[in-house]
Amino acid sequence: MSVLERINSCKDVKDLSLDEMNELASDIRKGILNRVNKIGGHLGPDLGIVEVTIALHYVFDCPYDQFVFDVSHQCYPHKMLTGRKDAFINNEKLADYSGYFAPIESPCDPFIIGHTSTSISLACGLAKARDLRKEKFNVIALIGDGSLSGGEAYEGFNNAAVLKSNFIAIVNDNEMSIAKNQGGLYKNLEELRKTKGEAQNNFFKTLGFDYIYIEEGNNIEVLINEFKKIKDIKRPIVVHIHTLKGKGYKPAEKYKENYHWQLPGFMDKKQNKQIDFNQTYESITTDFLLRKKMEGEHIAVINPATPGAVGFSEEFRKAMGDNYTDVGIAEEHAIAYTSALARGGAKPVLAILSSFVQRTYDQLSQDLALNNSPATILVYWGAISNADCTHLGVFDIPLISNIPNIVYLSPTNKEEYLAMLEYSINQESHPTVIRVPFGTLRATGIKDKTDYSILNKFKMNKKGSAVAIIAAGNFYALGEEVSKLLEEKYDIHPTLINPCFLSGVDCDMLNKLKLNHKLVITLEDGVISGGFGEKISRFYSSSDMKVLNFGADKIFTDRIALDELYNKYHLTKELIVEDIIKILEK
Amino acid sequence: MSVLERINSCKDVKDLSLDEMNELASDIRKGILNRVNKIGGHLGPDLGIVEVTIALHYVFDCPYDQFVFDVSHQCYPHKMLTGRKDAFINNEKLADYSGYFAPIESPCDPFIIGHTSTSISLACGLAKARDLRKEKFNVIALIGDGSLSGGEAYEGFNNAAVLKSNFIAIVNDNEMSIAKNQGGLYKNLEELRKTKGEAQNNFFKTLGFDYIYIEEGNNIEVLINEFKKIKDIKRPIVVHIHTLKGKGYKPAEKYKENYHWQLPGFMDKKQNKQIDFNQTYESITTDFLLRKKMEGEHIAVINPATPGAVGFSEEFRKAMGDNYTDVGIAEEHAIAYTSALARGGAKPVLAILSSFVQRTYDQLSQDLALNNSPATILVYWGAISNADCTHLGVFDIPLISNIPNIVYLSPTNKEEYLAMLEYSINQESHPTVIRVPFGTLRATGIKDKTDYSILNKFKMNKKGSAVAIIAAGNFYALGEEVSKLLEEKYDIHPTLINPCFLSGVDCDMLNKLKLNHKLVITLEDGVISGGFGEKISRFYSSSDMKVLNFGADKIFTDRIALDELYNKYHLTKELIVEDIIKILEK
Repeated sequence: MSVLERINSCKDVKDLSLDEMNELASDIRKGILNRVNKIGGHLGPDLGIVEVTIALHYVFDCPYDQFVFDVSHQCYPHKMLTGRKDAFINNEKLADYSGYFAPIESPCDPFIIGHTSTSISLACGLAKARDLRKEKFNVIALIGDGSLSGGEAYEGFNNAAVLKSNFIAIVNDNEMSIAKNQGGLYKNLEELRKTKGEAQNNFFKTLGFDYIYIEEGNNIEVLINEFKKIKDIKRPIVVHIHTLKGKGYKPAEKYKENYHWQLPGFMDKKQNKQIDFNQTYESITTDFLLRKKMEGEHIAVINPATPGAVGFSEEFRKAMGDNYTDVGIAEEHAIAYTSALARGGAKPVLAILSSFVQRTYDQLSQDLALNNSPATILVYWGAISNADCTHLGVFDIPLISNIPNIVYLSPTNKEEYLAMLEYSINQESHPTVIRVPFGTLRATGIKDKTDYSILNKFKMNKKGSAVAIIAAGNFYALGEEVSKLLEEKYDIHPTLINPCFLSGVDCDMLNKLKLNHKLVITLEDGVISGGFGEKISRFYSSSDMKVLNFGADKIFTDRIALDELYNKYHLTKELIVEDIIKILEK
Repeated sequence: MSVLERINSCKDVKDLSLDEMNELASDIRKGILNRVNKIGGHLGPDLGIVEVTIALHYVFDCPYDQFVFDVSHQCYPHKMLTGRKDAFINNEKLADYSGYFAPIESPCDPFIIGHTSTSISLACGLAKARDLRKEKFNVIALIGDGSLSGGEAYEGFNNAAVLKSNFIAIVNDNEMSIAKNQGGLYKNLEELRKTKGEAQNNFFKTLGFDYIYIEEGNNIEVLINEFKKIKDIKRPIVVHIHTLKGKGYKPAEKYKENYHWQLPGFMDKKQNKQIDFNQTYESITTDFLLRKKMEGEHIAVINPATPGAVGFSEEFRKAMGDNYTDVGIAEEHAIAYTSALARGGAKPVLAILSSFVQRTYDQLSQDLALNNSPATILVYWGAISNADCTHLGVFDIPLISNIPNIVYLSPTNKEEYLAMLEYSINQESHPTVIRVPFGTLRATGIKDKTDYSILNKFKMNKKGSAVAIIAAGNFYALGEEVSKLLEEKYDIHPTLINPCFLSGVDCDMLNKLKLNHKLVITLEDGVISGGFGEKISRFYSSSDMKVLNFGADKIFTDRIALDELYNKYHLTKELIVEDIIKILEK
């Protein structure tokens, strides 16, 4: 029986000898590799934090003492020690557990966490509540160096520093964000590492924290000794720990960005080979951007710390040179910076995931839209999916489309997407957001010559009667299927419309539909609440036209299979046609 | 002719002698006082920055060199020197000019700015665009110490620090935010002031900036000499300048918080007397919170740097003691902190303005809603108004009501508001946001005994037929007026509904309305797009019920008179009744 197999709760760690703990570290690494190789997940950050996690559970008393792990990218060892080893070593049960902090799984996870830079503020609130209730436990936030670039982390540090009670921030410095760290702060961290914490200027001390530095962040004995010294400390302290990202798995130690996260099966493949991006929306985007740069445009490509997720390979980034900026995990800055680049006469194109564009509503509104800066923002991964509840891509339509001045475009295929990109970087009238199609690339082979400067002009791709299908973006194909099924099964010849725009309605076209249509349906790949379809419902609300809005419910779903969601939301051609027929027969 | 009267553009400053510039400073102060005393506005920050502004325009060449003033709270002297002195000394024209940065007024204002902590990122984008275009001008961001607590500013600093070209950040340190500064950073600034910039730990240096300190921030000669040294610098530098907030007007020097902003006529009144808050929504809120504290609840009141705007007087804050936290300008932290306070067993109540709750969408979604923390958030100033385009309170309904799990309540009078507050702090099921009514307090005198734990239950306050009026929050009174006018003029007896909830619909009640109503109208004091009314439109979209949504258009309005807006949006009882009759007669 391995040491890990004997650990049923974190209390069991306290009974181990140092040798056993080192063996445990090895067991944990095997568990991490097993899970990620089977179902995918975060790898490098988890491999690096194994010893810190063991030492934390040896010294502190979880869940009495409360741990908050930033962004959850390094929570696997913690999960293994807190009653959830099955998620790593029992191949039948891997997928039963989330890869993130999950209070539903254990009282040792006080919050659901999946977005970056939140841990310090959350821990600060726990500490304050503890003080008001006159309790005494330790509050420990664990935050990676990459997460330090986010504004919320900084706001949290600035406030936590003035607590007059126990607050322990562990900074896990593995010299990496998801990709390379970005920003001036990282030179200070480097200086602190070089001087073993003795550098003249110390970021954490400037904010008022006590500070200690631990060089041997993968040495359990050293860590335990240091943690014992600070347990029950009565003031805020930063414990700056140097760890090795990917430790114990050579490829992950070497190719830190590639192994931050991995897909299932990575251990069985040869690594570090170029992935073939032909025929993807990602590849046509980077091809477009490179071409524009070569043509001498003052193109400025911006990404907040997730280049891999949007297909910005190292090769692409190198080729873009000064025309590429990774701003680090700093989405607020990313939008303001993008807006100013446009005002300054460059042609900025920001690539960001739907789930993370949420991190910057006010900047979209004030810095960008109010200033009507002609920037281009590409929103990736905007779609209903089986993702974790922290990474849903279904809220960007309500978020973005209700901000004045922003034009939100929703291409349905390659040619439209490229035409919209071309339009956007050449226009000077509006901030333009493009919802990059999600999934397999669709191509018509026919160049799109639409003039997108005529705002809110929908495309009627098929003229019919009785029913009009307004199918946006990813769901245009579903619209086609519905149309076909109506024809085949009911001899109904519906009108099929690609709205192209999510931020406004084509009043003229919608009015004309009244002449010979009874029902309009809308299909959007996101929540209905506050989204595109409701605008169509409002448009017709005082007329005789019936409307049905299809899309996602306003709920946080968590790793629900797509089929199940589509069935629940009536997003299959059969269910939609049934709903249509019910209305027509009324 | 005063010196100021001779200044027609900032170029004219360059011809002045030092004596003339000192005279100009005095003229500018008179202009500031004149404008604020006549039409209200920011006072202390503008009085403090006069000399810095003159010296900047003497040394730099605006608009070739580009200035970005954070939050615009200190832009009056800049406006006076850039062709807009009429806004201060010509009493006929004061209100023709915005109190904020306004590109429409002058090329010397590159952006519309009114929210805090944006200047560094915006300037960083201008600098990058300049570099891509191979231009050479200086980019100068001016940011107050108070704005340094915001995450966007930090993200901007972290990124600007690694520019390899000219970037000048002027930190105007007047030792104050709007209220007192909050957070660990401010001890570092104090240390830097005490040591004339020589303190061992220097926040700006930790981020990689060159740094100089200027103690005499109200001495034009000193400032000019220092600015000359850094003009055309080839790397990012922070110029930390110590100024006196309110300088030149004794009451403003003494009562810095009160005089940050002032109402018209302040010079004619005795200052520093307690404002009478009887019979306001602000006063009943603070009374409620104080009472809860006295009753021994672990109440935790949180506010991000705008206590005055929500009626949190110094007396109140003192009385709340440890149960009150001003987190500084740090809305993201504020929400995460609030969520964690609730999870930690305290009863947090966060007070925030509608325009600023925008600064924290992702925290509302991830830190709060996804975690379903039973916190209470009070949103103030949510209403259509004649405010500046940067401070509109019309976007909070789409922003908040489309996030899962959040219950958004909309009281219509004192008793309802207090009952909702009581409900919210005692429940443990949901994050609850209350849209504090805007304007004069309305009281029924009858205690509200509604059970708000029955979610989305609307109140049918008057049962009628043909037309149902669903009138939310501030607009409930308008709903009553519409109802009355319909009765008097058309003998129509409408149903009148107070929805109470903005985040869901009462399906049962709405279905029953179908029996004997032809039309439902919705009234909401905010943008319609993505808001409450659209949910009602969607509910009825496949039925025969007609719906009309009343509210604001999706546009940024700028200091438009309320009457004009109400007419434009058909938000008067007469126009609404006209629209109703048109539908009924169809």
